[in-house]
Amino acid sequence: MYDTTKPYKKEIIELIKTTWNTRYANVENGIVVNRKFRGKDFHHVDGIGTKGVYYWQKKLFDSAVMDALAMNLNDLAAERAIPYALTDHIMIPKDNKGYILEIVKSLVNECKERDIVILNGETAIHNNMDGLEISVNMVGFVKKPKPNKFNLGDILIGIESNGLHSNGFSKIRKLFKDKFRMEFITPTRDYIDKIFEIDKKININGMCHITGGAYIKLQDLLYNNNLQIRKNHILKPQDIYYEIYEKGVSDYEMYKTFNCGIGFILGINKKDENKFIDEMAGRFKCDVIGKITKGNGKIKIESQFSKRKIEF
Amino acid sequence: MYDTTKPYKKEIIELIKTTWNTRYANVENGIVVNRKFRGKDFHHVDGIGTKGVYYWQKKLFDSAVMDALAMNLNDLAAERAIPYALTDHIMIPKDNKGYILEIVKSLVNECKERDIVILNGETAIHNNMDGLEISVNMVGFVKKPKPNKFNLGDILIGIESNGLHSNGFSKIRKLFKDKFRMEFITPTRDYIDKIFEIDKKININGMCHITGGAYIKLQDLLYNNNLQIRKNHILKPQDIYYEIYEKGVSDYEMYKTFNCGIGFILGINKKDENKFIDEMAGRFKCDVIGKITKGNGKIKIESQFSKRKIEF
Repeated sequence: MYDTTKPYKKEIIELIKTTWNTRYANVENGIVVNRKFRGKDFHHVDGIGTKGVYYWQKKLFDSAVMDALAMNLNDLAAERAIPYALTDHIMIPKDNKGYILEIVKSLVNECKERDIVILNGETAIHNNMDGLEISVNMVGFVKKPKPNKFNLGDILIGIESNGLHSNGFSKIRKLFKDKFRMEFITPTRDYIDKIFEIDKKININGMCHITGGAYIKLQDLLYNNNLQIRKNHILKPQDIYYEIYEKGVSDYEMYKTFNCGIGFILGINKKDENKFIDEMAGRFKCDVIGKITKGNGKIKIESQFSKRKIEF
Repeated sequence: MYDTTKPYKKEIIELIKTTWNTRYANVENGIVVNRKFRGKDFHHVDGIGTKGVYYWQKKLFDSAVMDALAMNLNDLAAERAIPYALTDHIMIPKDNKGYILEIVKSLVNECKERDIVILNGETAIHNNMDGLEISVNMVGFVKKPKPNKFNLGDILIGIESNGLHSNGFSKIRKLFKDKFRMEFITPTRDYIDKIFEIDKKININGMCHITGGAYIKLQDLLYNNNLQIRKNHILKPQDIYYEIYEKGVSDYEMYKTFNCGIGFILGINKKDENKFIDEMAGRFKCDVIGKITKGNGKIKIESQFSKRKIEF
C-alpha cells in the first residue's frame, strides 16, 4: 500500500482519490463500494520491463506511464475486457518526490480520461535496480465472453505498430550496449478504443497483441489450423528493425522477439475485409497480411528481412 | 500476462488453474465468472523490495513467496478484507525455468491453502536488477467496512514480529554491505487468521501492520489523540536490532524504519485486555505496550535501545 508516512505519499493518495468516481465504479477509502456496470472480471498484469532503463536515463515518466498502460490495454482489448480499475507498483532506484509525483500525476490523468479508478498502489525504492519499473494490474469487465480463436479461412489483418513497443529490450540492451536510439523511448501504441468500436460492427474471430513472445503468441489462437503471413503487404518493419537484423539477429529470432512493424493481428471473415479496412481508415494503417489454412498448428512467415521463410 | 510462448509458461498456466475453484470464487479462462461471497472489494499491492537481493543470493523462493504474501495479508487484516484473489508480477534477473516454476508452485500451494485464486500474472526477466521481486496484487472483500481508528482511552496491544520482516532493507544493505545474517531471510509473519478470529469476539477499534514507515504509520489512526508506547513490556527487539542500533542508527530512525520486535499493533477497550491476551495465548506473544491519550496527534515512544524518548 502507498506508505503514508512521507508527506508526498499523502499527496499521492489525494491524487488517486480524484479517479474514484467513474461511470463504472465508485470507490471510498480505497474500497470499491459500487460497480455500476457488472460483468465478469478479467485481471491483467504487465510492466515495461527493461525498457525502464531508458526511461529512467531520460527521465521520461509520461512515456513510461503510457507504455505500462498500453501494454495492459492491448491485452484487455484482445479479451474484450473494458478496463475500469487498476493498481500500480512503481519502482525507482532512488527516492525522489518529484519523479514519483510526476509518475502518479501522469497515471491519474490517463486514468481519468479512460474512466479507470486507481484503487491502490505501492511505491518502492529499489536501489538494486538500474532503471524504473511501473507494474500495472488492470481489471476489466467482460460483458459477454467470446472465444478468441482464428477460424479456417479467416483472413488476417495486421495493424501497424509504432516501433519496438515494450518488449525485447533485454535483447536490445545486449545488442546496443550503451548506444541510444530515439526508438527506445517511444511508448507502445494502444489499440483498445478502435478495436472495441470495430468489434461492435464486424465479427472479429481472433485477436492477438504482438508483444512478449511476438508471433509465437499466435499459436494460442490456432487450434490445429495453420497461419500464414506473406511478405507482400504494406506494414513494413521500421528502420530500427533492419538495424537490429543487421547486427546478426536471425529471421527466426526477429519474429519470436519483436513485432517487426505489426502491433496487433486480427482474424476476420474474408467478406468483411473491405468494411474492416474502411473502418480503420484515418486511425491506424492496416492491411491484409495473411490467412488461416488447414494444417497442424504451424505458423509460417515470409520474413521481411530476407528471402527466408520462418516456421514456428 | 504470463507469456505462453515458452513451454514452461504453459506449465505455469496449468499450475495456476488448480487454484481456480474456491469457496469464494470460480474462474474460467482467467475470468472471474462467479463470486460466491460478495462484498466490497479492497485491493492491495506489495512486494518484498530489496530483501529480494538476499532471497536471490540464497535461492530461497518459498520464503520469498511467503514474504510477498504476508506483506499483503497483514495489510488486508487491518482492513478486515478477506483475501480471495491475486495476481503476481515475478521479476528475476536471469531466465530460469526451474526457479520460476519453484516460485509459482510455492505461490499456488499457499493460495490453495487459503482459498485464494491466482487470476493472472507476469514473469519478467530484469537483467537490470540484482535480486528478485515478487509483486502481489491481492483482492479481498470487506463484509462490513468499519473505521480503523484508535479511541481515547484505548490500550495498545503489540504482537511480536519474528524479526526484520520485509522492510528497511535498503538501510540494512547500506549498513551490512556484503555481510549476511540469517535474519535477512526470515519471511514476514502473517497475522490475518488470528486477527479475524479475535475480531469476531472482541471489539477492535484500530489495527496497524508495522511495516514500511514503521511506527509513523500509527499516525493515520490517531485523529488528534496522542499515542504512547512504554518501555516496560515483554516484546523486546530481536538481537539483530541491537546490532543495527550499534552501527550508529538513531533511536528515531530505528522506530521510523523497523518494527523493533512488534509486527502488529491493535487498539482495544481497556476492559477487553485479559480476554484479548487469553485469546492470543499459544499463537503469538503479545502484551500491552501503551495507550491512547488526549493530545494533538503525537506518537511518543520510550526507546528500547536507550533512555531516550522519541516523538513523531
